[in-house]
Amino acid sequence: MNENIMTYETVDLGDNDENVIIIDQTRLPGKVEMIHLRTAQEIWDAIYLLKVRGAPAIGVAAAFGIYVLARQIAEEETEFDGFYKKFKEQKDYLDSARPTAVNLAWALNRMDRVCRQAYEDGNDVQKILEILGKEAREIKQEDIRVCKAIGEYGLSLVKPGDGILTHCNAGQLATCKYGTATAPIYLGQERGYQFRVFADETRPLLQGARLTAYELHSAGVDVTLICDNMSGMVMKNGWVNAVFVGCDRVAANGDVANKIGTSVVAAVAKQYGIPFYVCAPTSTIDLDTPTGAEITIEQRREEEVTQMWYKERMAPEGVKVFNPAFDVTDHELITAIVTEHGIARAPFTETLSKCK
Amino acid sequence: MNENIMTYETVDLGDNDENVIIIDQTRLPGKVEMIHLRTAQEIWDAIYLLKVRGAPAIGVAAAFGIYVLARQIAEEETEFDGFYKKFKEQKDYLDSARPTAVNLAWALNRMDRVCRQAYEDGNDVQKILEILGKEAREIKQEDIRVCKAIGEYGLSLVKPGDGILTHCNAGQLATCKYGTATAPIYLGQERGYQFRVFADETRPLLQGARLTAYELHSAGVDVTLICDNMSGMVMKNGWVNAVFVGCDRVAANGDVANKIGTSVVAAVAKQYGIPFYVCAPTSTIDLDTPTGAEITIEQRREEEVTQMWYKERMAPEGVKVFNPAFDVTDHELITAIVTEHGIARAPFTETLSKCK
Repeated sequence: MNENIMTYETVDLGDNDENVIIIDQTRLPGKVEMIHLRTAQEIWDAIYLLKVRGAPAIGVAAAFGIYVLARQIAEEETEFDGFYKKFKEQKDYLDSARPTAVNLAWALNRMDRVCRQAYEDGNDVQKILEILGKEAREIKQEDIRVCKAIGEYGLSLVKPGDGILTHCNAGQLATCKYGTATAPIYLGQERGYQFRVFADETRPLLQGARLTAYELHSAGVDVTLICDNMSGMVMKNGWVNAVFVGCDRVAANGDVANKIGTSVVAAVAKQYGIPFYVCAPTSTIDLDTPTGAEITIEQRREEEVTQMWYKERMAPEGVKVFNPAFDVTDHELITAIVTEHGIARAPFTETLSKCK
Repeated sequence: MNENIMTYETVDLGDNDENVIIIDQTRLPGKVEMIHLRTAQEIWDAIYLLKVRGAPAIGVAAAFGIYVLARQIAEEETEFDGFYKKFKEQKDYLDSARPTAVNLAWALNRMDRVCRQAYEDGNDVQKILEILGKEAREIKQEDIRVCKAIGEYGLSLVKPGDGILTHCNAGQLATCKYGTATAPIYLGQERGYQFRVFADETRPLLQGARLTAYELHSAGVDVTLICDNMSGMVMKNGWVNAVFVGCDRVAANGDVANKIGTSVVAAVAKQYGIPFYVCAPTSTIDLDTPTGAEITIEQRREEEVTQMWYKERMAPEGVKVFNPAFDVTDHELITAIVTEHGIARAPFTETLSKCK
């Protein structure tokens, strides 16, 4: 069960580019199961049901997904007009799987642009498929380079032996390698930094317990699992020198949408004077969204809160439940945003556009 | 299942004062089951296993418990010396069930003082039993009066239609009636205030979901259950006008030990400028404890975090877990401490000793 997660690919293309292969993250930490996605429905479901999740990994899965679907479309549609009409339909369909992470739309729009450009450059559908395949692979390789660069910049903000707290999973499982928030931790691990990491379990879906505690533990990192409401005590005790979190979307003013509870961790870190760092590939920076108020927050099913328990439901029948998947952290609570191009600090309105 | 909890006694004496009757709170919200406790082991277990919990309710259960045990001791020990030796042993045993809530020791010490005083006043063991029974009943009646008074003072801090957030259960189930943090809510409910209440589910034992959401919903209060890490979003949205929490021990400087996560809620409330009120019977104010740093914090089993889930464990085997039951909220995060004798504000070092 504790096989080193670093030896697995979070998202990959299958043989002959006929399907997308992912680790089914809903089975972790109990079982590492690779699943093959071939149809649009399978890819959409995998994103919607969080079998693959994490903004960067969703982007790569969508890019591979639309490429795999494009190959299927091309079997019937050999002319561009017919091909592109169906390509566009499938792209819009995949884009509808989740609303908050900008990477889904970002990756699909990039594939769409490349598709149209390839046509304008005079390529036929078969050649366009080749170009799409190359682009999807490049998105994955970029993700790995980006995460590593974020890790290097992040590592410059801490020192050996530091306590680091992270929330939810912005780990290797959320990306193609290293993760975003975990990239400084993994690079530090390679260099003997001996961090002491605290992983919030992250309600309602426990992705911190199931995924972050799992992947860090499997990689040999010193990690302690805590419930989300224990961050105050852990910080007050002086055990945390820095907080690293990932993000699903950064607005132009530096407000950050990330997994529900991130804004709570940020407020607590401020209370105890602990720096709060957001690790953000520039693909998650959305300058078209002025502030966090304009970010759509996904609401999820009540049952995720009331019915995960082994004996019986743990909330009374009929009680109202509020179950948002993300929240927005005010830019004023953020010490710095760590991108692959450098570390942005306030005023973010100026510094983010330079990173981008 | 949704029978109005207000019609039940949280803690009571059974027929002929032969046992203590409690609602088994570990069965809620699925089932309202009254259980009878007769032996020292049963009473200790009920407190240790959280079948009865909440600082004031623990105090009453302990007072009833030591009285019921005293009656059993008196069947064999008719002389005071023999009687008192065993009385003291049982008192110390019950006192060892949980370390953080001061009410356990407070109620047992009060029963002990009354016992010795009754002897010094020339009473025999049979008469001492009568006096102990009267005192235990008085502790319960006091609790009801105290909670109601806290409710009246608390109600003066909010207005009809307000949003109120509470953490864990400082409700009727934690006391003998009204609760502490919920007392303003129940009194407001009687007077048509129509509060909108948010109940944190409270990891790891979900007492907010299982107990607070249950009792408020059963009493017809408009309550919405949230995971602990959603308090930031709910407060940022402007849905919360005041936070009311209970407490297990108040130190002389106003630092408060309460269910783990309370300090997190307090930091978030501060961030959004929302008043944070601690509802504290003066029996929980411990002037002998100078600051929160001197309060013993109970640590609980890792399995509470890793193995509550219906399919399988949700954390990897072998990962470290930190599972404190309480945390300490700095007095500087507390807007006011609401007691049965009035509302104490900073500097608490002066105001608390006046309440007491």
